[in-house]
Amino acid sequence: MGKGKYEEIGNNLERSSLAFFTIGIIGAQIIGLIMVILVGSWLSNYRGGYGWDPKLVFNYHPLFMTLGMIFLYGDAMLVYRAFRSTTKLYVKILHGLIQVAVFVFATVALKAVFDSHNKVAKPIPNMYSLHSWVGLTAVILFGMQWVCGFVSFLFPKLSDGLRRMYLPHHKFWGLAVFVLCVAAALMGITEKAFFSLPNGQYAQLPGEAVLINFFGVTIVVFATLVVYLVTKEDYARPVDPIN
Amino acid sequence: MGKGKYEEIGNNLERSSLAFFTIGIIGAQIIGLIMVILVGSWLSNYRGGYGWDPKLVFNYHPLFMTLGMIFLYGDAMLVYRAFRSTTKLYVKILHGLIQVAVFVFATVALKAVFDSHNKVAKPIPNMYSLHSWVGLTAVILFGMQWVCGFVSFLFPKLSDGLRRMYLPHHKFWGLAVFVLCVAAALMGITEKAFFSLPNGQYAQLPGEAVLINFFGVTIVVFATLVVYLVTKEDYARPVDPIN
Repeated sequence: MGKGKYEEIGNNLERSSLAFFTIGIIGAQIIGLIMVILVGSWLSNYRGGYGWDPKLVFNYHPLFMTLGMIFLYGDAMLVYRAFRSTTKLYVKILHGLIQVAVFVFATVALKAVFDSHNKVAKPIPNMYSLHSWVGLTAVILFGMQWVCGFVSFLFPKLSDGLRRMYLPHHKFWGLAVFVLCVAAALMGITEKAFFSLPNGQYAQLPGEAVLINFFGVTIVVFATLVVYLVTKEDYARPVDPIN
Repeated sequence: MGKGKYEEIGNNLERSSLAFFTIGIIGAQIIGLIMVILVGSWLSNYRGGYGWDPKLVFNYHPLFMTLGMIFLYGDAMLVYRAFRSTTKLYVKILHGLIQVAVFVFATVALKAVFDSHNKVAKPIPNMYSLHSWVGLTAVILFGMQWVCGFVSFLFPKLSDGLRRMYLPHHKFWGLAVFVLCVAAALMGITEKAFFSLPNGQYAQLPGEAVLINFFGVTIVVFATLVVYLVTKEDYARPVDPIN
């Protein structure tokens, strides 16, 4: 087989790859939306809905964490590949702005859970579970990563050489913290499932339990799809002189 | 700066990279060992130790899953980079054999948890929690991935072109299933922590709770280190003609 044949296969692959990529992006949005609808309807239909009342305030925690640290965080990573022919600077600004929204959601979500522990008649200790350790670590690492990214790639912007050196680390830690958020979410869902359905109720798989489990499954599928789309080399953004 | 200067920097980087790689490999083994010691001592010191008695049989589940689906699975992925100058075929066989051990540990661990639910006076339903859904999916995907890997790369071995096409998928799903195992483990730990320390005991962070949380932290650190070491391009195995 000559080199020409290989190149032809390569071009065909590239075209079919990008079709798959588009399907992947749309699929991720659909699954992400189902995920947000599932968490939202779980808390509103089975857990009393939303409000700043100490008895309801907890419900903002899973809702905003899912919206921010999972859905928007995933989409923020996808923008470079989704807007593949947009000027890099604009995509960078979009990436940074979505991550600001993520951080705002995470902060409100943290305030909600601390309030739900502290502002009740019999306060609950904070930060004791593995979920809380992993989750807070993820939020702190996320904040640090945002600052490093902003300083390095937007303002004041490091030299070419330093940017080139930092970029793979920014990518790795961006993905690692995203997966850490997913792990924290799955632990949080597990905690809440056993709190909400105690004394063997969860094991009977009532409607709420099935909804909770499917919500967890959508998180796993969304995250797997996002990580696949942002790591597959065939889907990389064409090299852009304006970086 | 001439090209010579860049090449020199490149060579220096490569040398220092491989020093970091060796530190990383040793670090992963140390953290992995601490992880296995923590789970082992948790179950033996606080949960009655090991045995096939229905009251104790559960304890084999976390122990063997940690040993197999986390520690050995991680090391099986590392072998290509750790034994970078060993003939590829030998490393492939080692990779496949370690994964056989992983699957044996996982099977015994699954048998242990089903026995602990079924062989007690008041049987507990199986497969209701998100942990069980994600965990069993991970084991099944692992088995499928092993079969695909064996058929493609060892016997009967696919053609060059097909192997080249499948390899990136084998790598991606190998890592994805590994991370899925980690997520399942963290959910399992969360369940067991609330089962073992009910009625707010976990929140008081007694010795057992701290041990449980640190066990979870070692899983996260081990997994992060393994994924870093097997995905960083600088650490890739030099191209080997015998594949």
